[in-house]
Amino acid sequence: MKKTLKRGFASDNNAGIHPEVLKALQTANQGHCIAYGDDIFTERAIKKIKEYFNEDVDVYLTFNGTGSNVLSLKMLTDSFNSIICAETSHINVDECGAPEKFTGSKLLSVPTEDGKLTVDCIKYHMHGFDFEHHSQPQVISITQATEMGTVYTVKEIEKIASYAHKHKLYVHMDGARLSNAAVSIDKSFWEITGQAGIDVLSFGLTKNGAMNAEAIIFFNKEISRKFKFYRKQGMQLASKMRFMAVQFEALLSNELWKRNAEHANKMAKILADKVADIPQINITQKVEANGIFAIIPAVIIPKLQDQFFFYMWDQKKSEVRWMTSFDTQLSDIDDFIVLLKKLLK
Amino acid sequence: MKKTLKRGFASDNNAGIHPEVLKALQTANQGHCIAYGDDIFTERAIKKIKEYFNEDVDVYLTFNGTGSNVLSLKMLTDSFNSIICAETSHINVDECGAPEKFTGSKLLSVPTEDGKLTVDCIKYHMHGFDFEHHSQPQVISITQATEMGTVYTVKEIEKIASYAHKHKLYVHMDGARLSNAAVSIDKSFWEITGQAGIDVLSFGLTKNGAMNAEAIIFFNKEISRKFKFYRKQGMQLASKMRFMAVQFEALLSNELWKRNAEHANKMAKILADKVADIPQINITQKVEANGIFAIIPAVIIPKLQDQFFFYMWDQKKSEVRWMTSFDTQLSDIDDFIVLLKKLLK
Amino acid sequence: MKKTLKRGFASDNNAGIHPEVLKALQTANQGHCIAYGDDIFTERAIKKIKEYFNEDVDVYLTFNGTGSNVLSLKMLTDSFNSIICAETSHINVDECGAPEKFTGSKLLSVPTEDGKLTVDCIKYHMHGFDFEHHSQPQVISITQATEMGTVYTVKEIEKIASYAHKHKLYVHMDGARLSNAAVSIDKSFWEITGQAGIDVLSFGLTKNGAMNAEAIIFFNKEISRKFKFYRKQGMQLASKMRFMAVQFEALLSNELWKRNAEHANKMAKILADKVADIPQINITQKVEANGIFAIIPAVIIPKLQDQFFFYMWDQKKSEVRWMTSFDTQLSDIDDFIVLLKKLLK
Amino acid sequence: MKKTLKRGFASDNNAGIHPEVLKALQTANQGHCIAYGDDIFTERAIKKIKEYFNEDVDVYLTFNGTGSNVLSLKMLTDSFNSIICAETSHINVDECGAPEKFTGSKLLSVPTEDGKLTVDCIKYHMHGFDFEHHSQPQVISITQATEMGTVYTVKEIEKIASYAHKHKLYVHMDGARLSNAAVSIDKSFWEITGQAGIDVLSFGLTKNGAMNAEAIIFFNKEISRKFKFYRKQGMQLASKMRFMAVQFEALLSNELWKRNAEHANKMAKILADKVADIPQINITQKVEANGIFAIIPAVIIPKLQDQFFFYMWDQKKSEVRWMTSFDTQLSDIDDFIVLLKKLLK
Repeated sequence: MKKTLKRGFASDNNAGIHPEVLKALQTANQGHCIAYGDDIFTERAIKKIKEYFNEDVDVYLTFNGTGSNVLSLKMLTDSFNSIICAETSHINVDECGAPEKFTGSKLLSVPTEDGKLTVDCIKYHMHGFDFEHHSQPQVISITQATEMGTVYTVKEIEKIASYAHKHKLYVHMDGARLSNAAVSIDKSFWEITGQAGIDVLSFGLTKNGAMNAEAIIFFNKEISRKFKFYRKQGMQLASKMRFMAVQFEALLSNELWKRNAEHANKMAKILADKVADIPQINITQKVEANGIFAIIPAVIIPKLQDQFFFYMWDQKKSEVRWMTSFDTQLSDIDDFIVLLKKLLK
Repeated sequence: MKKTLKRGFASDNNAGIHPEVLKALQTANQGHCIAYGDDIFTERAIKKIKEYFNEDVDVYLTFNGTGSNVLSLKMLTDSFNSIICAETSHINVDECGAPEKFTGSKLLSVPTEDGKLTVDCIKYHMHGFDFEHHSQPQVISITQATEMGTVYTVKEIEKIASYAHKHKLYVHMDGARLSNAAVSIDKSFWEITGQAGIDVLSFGLTKNGAMNAEAIIFFNKEISRKFKFYRKQGMQLASKMRFMAVQFEALLSNELWKRNAEHANKMAKILADKVADIPQINITQKVEANGIFAIIPAVIIPKLQDQFFFYMWDQKKSEVRWMTSFDTQLSDIDDFIVLLKKLLK
Repeated sequence: MKKTLKRGFASDNNAGIHPEVLKALQTANQGHCIAYGDDIFTERAIKKIKEYFNEDVDVYLTFNGTGSNVLSLKMLTDSFNSIICAETSHINVDECGAPEKFTGSKLLSVPTEDGKLTVDCIKYHMHGFDFEHHSQPQVISITQATEMGTVYTVKEIEKIASYAHKHKLYVHMDGARLSNAAVSIDKSFWEITGQAGIDVLSFGLTKNGAMNAEAIIFFNKEISRKFKFYRKQGMQLASKMRFMAVQFEALLSNELWKRNAEHANKMAKILADKVADIPQINITQKVEANGIFAIIPAVIIPKLQDQFFFYMWDQKKSEVRWMTSFDTQLSDIDDFIVLLKKLLK
Repeated sequence: MKKTLKRGFASDNNAGIHPEVLKALQTANQGHCIAYGDDIFTERAIKKIKEYFNEDVDVYLTFNGTGSNVLSLKMLTDSFNSIICAETSHINVDECGAPEKFTGSKLLSVPTEDGKLTVDCIKYHMHGFDFEHHSQPQVISITQATEMGTVYTVKEIEKIASYAHKHKLYVHMDGARLSNAAVSIDKSFWEITGQAGIDVLSFGLTKNGAMNAEAIIFFNKEISRKFKFYRKQGMQLASKMRFMAVQFEALLSNELWKRNAEHANKMAKILADKVADIPQINITQKVEANGIFAIIPAVIIPKLQDQFFFYMWDQKKSEVRWMTSFDTQLSDIDDFIVLLKKLLK
């Protein structure tokens, strides 16, 4: 049943891959290449990525977002450190403790209204420095766009980064949906990451139309000095890496990433707008990227899910999450709204 | 230079992917699927895999061989355990300590002539049981085909497994080249794994023509009870898993895996035969799968590598390794032999 | 300066050791004993401990409270699990991340008024079961007496334990000040631990007048099955264990532990009573064991600390902590009150 | 039975503690001290230790030898590193995998004749540098005196250290029996450690007559920069540290350590000399410290052990180990020889 190819709003990783990405895989399938990344495709992908960020960054491909996040954090911490993050952050609630297991560090979460950290809420955990009984705060990790569908402004990021660096902490950004954030506030990748003070970025394009295109970008090369060993030991080194590399190249060429992100965000806005007219539904977060959070009558949820995949976000509040993706169709939205209204009658 | 698309005998993972695998990726690219493996493609792949092994096994896809090996060993050990393996085994020398880092266990290696463990050499480490100061031997890990290009017979596996089980140890098999082994001794996957007493198998088809098709097969479901959590925490859970799944389906359909393995093995035999005629070269291992180990005059190695990728195996002995793959051409071999003979003059 | 032998109220581990404990060390210093606990002194200590709990428990000595807590939690968790605890708990804020490092698990903390967990606050974290992306709640850890100087009643413990077991979770108790709790509510060790539903106890007598007397008591022997290996691997196995063992024997004989705890608690009450009369000081927690928390004028703190050691608890609130111990003298309290009043003038 | 206070030659940690050490504990039992090492006793102990080594070292007390070894290695390694050691070394065979668990690193052992590493045998593992698939050799760990009762000369240590440093590796020394080594070759602690090129030393006096006196000495302060956090997280930070500290002071005053070590070594020589006259017994290692290894007729072992504790070393060879200690009496030896001869008749 649930294993049918039913369209929906469950997650942007329920979508397939963009045809140009598929085509790129074909292109990469020629001749022999040194495995593990020492090939021209990977070289080209890294060059392309640097164009979007900065020539002076270090780039490494990984298998998935969890891998990017965990290995990023590993490079920033000793096991006696702690990592400050939003309570709703992916690293805190959706990675089955992978950060703790691999880094040995402690996660210190703070509740937020909208998934966004602020200096004020970070301060709550900024104590115990140099006291050996206390896990030493070392990293602030933020997600852009957040897990709540909101987007940090450049200024907000800069404030956090400046506060962090002043206190000798690092800033990590989980950029699983960086593309959606960038188009949302019309800024380049560079402007909302390295330039704004981010030290290490988990850069993901999988949710943007790739099959598996994930990378870590180090804006400070001192941090990445030993990274290649940790990537291997962290089980994140692909043998036939060229097939991951060409996905980056495809998405970062001809602004495919941008078209995909703009489309997904636009679909979210449209869906949100249509839903906003329905009195029984209450949208709970600003719709700034490709996610919509809404409180809807509990009774209609099962029937709605029966036709369109999506997830319950907060059972108690009857809050659900709808995600749009690069391949969301207007007709998907229309059909969904029709059913929604029908069920609400 | 080294990043050109030069063909060679460096490794079977320097090859690209089989066209039927590429086509399968296309097939999978339709509609929306629940991510993380809860989709029909993964269901079908697992069904197909079970046909080759046994209905009663547990199958989980992973990203790569390191992931399969490390997570397999994790399921078999407490951190105070030890794992007995050949000194040349991939888990011992080619995974940058990933098994130690993730499991906390100790690897106990034994030197072998041909990469194959025997009960006799295992016995060396079978002591200290119940003595809390001593890492407790718990797993025997063997590789099929071995890293030395040799293949265990069913009987050899059974002997090890029977010895292991008698002493309450588990047997893990690293099957990164299981296909090459199976065709080499004309046995089914099942006959050389579960039926022969293996408890957990790292089953890899990446080197057999896939892009990334790796799985863990548990022949004892008690072992895999908690596995899904460890796969996630071990950063080995793919979001768009369907694209990994269809590669299994493609390779396990129409005996594609078999054709690929037979071809690779046959190419190795041909290369070995041609080389055997050259008096200055000494083949050091039986050529039972798709690898050839040979001592060749040190002076010609750089020039030979200049035209054909391959790796030095043992600098001191001037021993090199040549791997063939599903896409090795007769002309590759002929050109290589011509150059080899020319350089030896 | 701070390294003088100044008396004070900093912590019960700033006190020395009871003379009878010192004498016991002498008694143990005869002849040769098998090291690592296989000796008559350890046997006798374990027998004595069992008398206070139950014949059917498993007892292991460790070096310190951190070791007891971490190894207890290790026995109760897989690395993908989470541990629910009070935000102020020692395992959460005073062990430099030792639980996360050794177990790989996640700590889920909840704010409390008085350091005591309740079923209601535990429930906040009771979700995500069987969902592989989410760390699986597995242990509830409570501290008796709490870090805030309060004490759980038997009923309160039973409620938590019953809720935990109903949901297949374990309950761990950090009993670094179990003696103070026991005398506070006039219950036996057994009544407030195993009988009330605790699964594993960190049992500490160091703060009760020992030099280093710490143990783990398993009320469920299935949990401790592999413990001896983890104790060794966790660096908590003492060679000349007899000298730790005899401290238990000394304190658990002639009710020395009880006299010590009663004295410490009584001193706390006296100090609290005297302080209660001072209008500028506000006691913030119930004084149920041997700790007093009070808000005092910030300006007098440095001068007070100059004569008597004690710690700031919450800088922002100007809240301090005073601990009494088995060797606190009435004169210590009198002198302290005199100075306090003088400074407040 | 085995739990009687029977004297013997099982291990130097089966002995009790020297009366002067016991007396020192009493001295430390006065007034209140800041816990966790911030006290005058610890300050004095560290000062005293530095006198034996060098003013410019960093000293930290730990609970036991395993703790010292594991935390030393942690400070010298990333988890992707490897540690080269003798096959018989304590860190390799007697710590239940504690180094692997806590550091994540790989141990690379080499067989030796006499427990002593040489540059030649180290070289076997010196390869794979900068190759990310291979655990990177980073530390050479030697034991002084060795687990085989032999002692490195200053020159031998210097050779290893000089080779290590030339290749950018560190040298760790397990000095659980450093005193026995120092008196054996009539060198100071400093001459056989820091001055000879050791980077980090596990310095143990427990086997020399202490109850528990273990420390780590860093000869390179860059290495210990973050140590205090790792000691706490590694569960090796004692609360009432003063009682550990004074044991160092006692043993390092009036050359008590030296008298104890000289006595133990002398007793070993006497035992060895007496045994050497017995034709059925074959001493297998040089007796340079306080251990004797001998092959004796298997048939008499149980009866001998019945009267005197000692351990079988190698069952297959019928090789046993006899250790002497600071409290071994001539009469112990005489009685043992009498019984030995009687049984051999």
